[in-house]
Amino acid sequence: MSKAVFYHAGCPVCVSAEHTVADCLKTPVEKVHLGEVRSRVSEAEKLGVKSVPALVIDGQVFHINHGADLSVLK
Amino acid sequence: MSKAVFYHAGCPVCVSAEHTVADCLKTPVEKVHLGEVRSRVSEAEKLGVKSVPALVIDGQVFHINHGADLSVLK
Repeated sequence: MSKAVFYHAGCPVCVSAEHTVADCLKTPVEKVHLGEVRSRVSEAEKLGVKSVPALVIDGQVFHINHGADLSVLK
Repeated sequence: MSKAVFYHAGCPVCVSAEHTVADCLKTPVEKVHLGEVRSRVSEAEKLGVKSVPALVIDGQVFHINHGADLSVLK
């Protein structure tokens, strides 16, 4: 089964995507709050994440709506 | 269980979101190709869909990346 990582910043747009999309995937989802774990912002950036909320599944990045640009989390 | 509708236009961005996100949801997903079923473009618009691919779950709209604006499908 594929692995998914959900990057978010705890904002309302992120919470909505988390509860309605990320939590409804069949695959296990690791959740990373980039506002709290800023050391992982560069990891997200390398994967191609431009904004949160974003879901990375098997190396593919899916930006879901728009909460905040990654740049404000640095 | 909630019901999900995935609106798309058959473009590469849509196909990627379909296979990696929509097909991986626990909930059943109705797929609507707005390029082929243009009569449903106004339905999507009323739900708040601005671009495809988009997933509507329990009335909440999630735009996933950006394939095409709805306006080009009218």
